Amino acid sequence: MNLENLHNQIKLKKSFLCLGLDSDISKIPNHLLKENDPIFSFNKSLLDSLQELIVAVKINTAFYEANGSNGWITLEKTINYINQNYPELYTIADAKRGDIGNTSDKYAQAFFKTLDFDSITVSPYMGSDSIEPFLKYKDKQTIMLGLTSNKGAEDFQLFPDLENSLFKRVLSKSKNWKNSHNLMYVVGATKSDYLKDIRKIVPDNFLLIPGIGAQGGSLKQTFENGANVNVGLLVNSSRSIIYASNKEDYLIEAYKVAAELQIEMKDLLVSYD
Amino acid sequence: MNLENLHNQIKLKKSFLCLGLDSDISKIPNHLLKENDPIFSFNKSLLDSLQELIVAVKINTAFYEANGSNGWITLEKTINYINQNYPELYTIADAKRGDIGNTSDKYAQAFFKTLDFDSITVSPYMGSDSIEPFLKYKDKQTIMLGLTSNKGAEDFQLFPDLENSLFKRVLSKSKNWKNSHNLMYVVGATKSDYLKDIRKIVPDNFLLIPGIGAQGGSLKQTFENGANVNVGLLVNSSRSIIYASNKEDYLIEAYKVAAELQIEMKDLLVSYD
Repeated sequence: MNLENLHNQIKLKKSFLCLGLDSDISKIPNHLLKENDPIFSFNKSLLDSLQELIVAVKINTAFYEANGSNGWITLEKTINYINQNYPELYTIADAKRGDIGNTSDKYAQAFFKTLDFDSITVSPYMGSDSIEPFLKYKDKQTIMLGLTSNKGAEDFQLFPDLENSLFKRVLSKSKNWKNSHNLMYVVGATKSDYLKDIRKIVPDNFLLIPGIGAQGGSLKQTFENGANVNVGLLVNSSRSIIYASNKEDYLIEAYKVAAELQIEMKDLLVSYD
Repeated sequence: MNLENLHNQIKLKKSFLCLGLDSDISKIPNHLLKENDPIFSFNKSLLDSLQELIVAVKINTAFYEANGSNGWITLEKTINYINQNYPELYTIADAKRGDIGNTSDKYAQAFFKTLDFDSITVSPYMGSDSIEPFLKYKDKQTIMLGLTSNKGAEDFQLFPDLENSLFKRVLSKSKNWKNSHNLMYVVGATKSDYLKDIRKIVPDNFLLIPGIGAQGGSLKQTFENGANVNVGLLVNSSRSIIYASNKEDYLIEAYKVAAELQIEMKDLLVSYD
């Protein structure tokens, strides 16, 4: 998807909410287990119910790979369903890939061509030539880990010290890479205090913000510190929405949680009208 | 696989060679394209021909994912074929995974349970709680990126300077993680000058060394600087073996390249008799 379309969708829907499909067979409502592909049925029903509230969908590959090749089939069915029925939704393969050039080429092929995702998350550890194979795709974005929401983020991302930290190096260095206009960055909502500093380094790029909901980050603080002139934020929520209930009312409960977030977003977006 | 078995196999076969199955439909011999699953036929024939020369097999997930769910089926068939026919071969899922805890749990499930790999490569960027879910599996190893073979390694792994570099921090910090005895590390053969320093930090762990062959690293130098009292090395070669020829003689040519490496290894291992 062209990024202008994403900007327009955010304004149109008054939402920058991304739905995370971390769909786990052990957590979905029992009555779906009789379906032919319970995870796909779960995903499809959530997409049909929530599509008006969200602008993006993030599919976490781990939850599909855990089911082997059948899981990969479910992944294919889900991305194809979105592209066929809701082409206005921005799609993210949350895959955290990254390897030497000829291997990253294959990952890019896997997620941008074989599966037609708009974007993929990648890990920066191996540097420029591990990321540039993703960046060369026109109208596809590569979302690189910056500062993540988990406790272990402190181990290396804040090394050697906050002022000169690795995550700042990752942000600044990557701006010089070929086709760096196709970069977005992951910044955890639990790290919203750092967002002002981050915006000084990457004022224009979209930030993908996980950690709202189950991980405890604040939406308001994230917005105030992280939004740019084009909004430039996708805030993801996975578990707090999709597992709002594990009973037959799961779609209603998921809708309530997502709608609450969208209403909060609508209020925050007032100044963009 | 229990690591003692791997040590024994290295002594028995006088080899620490790992065969990398970066199997690409556009590079395999033409006559295999008429097979039902050309990549599986290619992998199977290479395994049958080379199993006596190698102690480990590394399957690069990118090359399978590029073919979608069919590729994932080929991946499953390949790991199952190895486990059924050559249980003495140590298996590595070269997947470079790593994510927040509940997601890494799913990746560990995918590669250690759904697929029965002995080990998986992971990226350290997200820190301890992204890796520990892999480490809790008994008799499974987690191979973390240390210093990689590619040019981009300099971007972050050598940051902020060689003496206090990120990759050294990764090695030393990870020694304190829960079940860190299940860690191995990736060190590129193109970085063999650094191996002596690396052995000061992680004297006991296995090192997985890619970059011999197509990437130009030296086996002798790698061994002299990197071997420990138990050898402690797995040297991988992918492209230089599996694409030694793309004609009907590919198995013979692959055998020649692998045998040349194994003979060199046998000579280097003389002092371990």
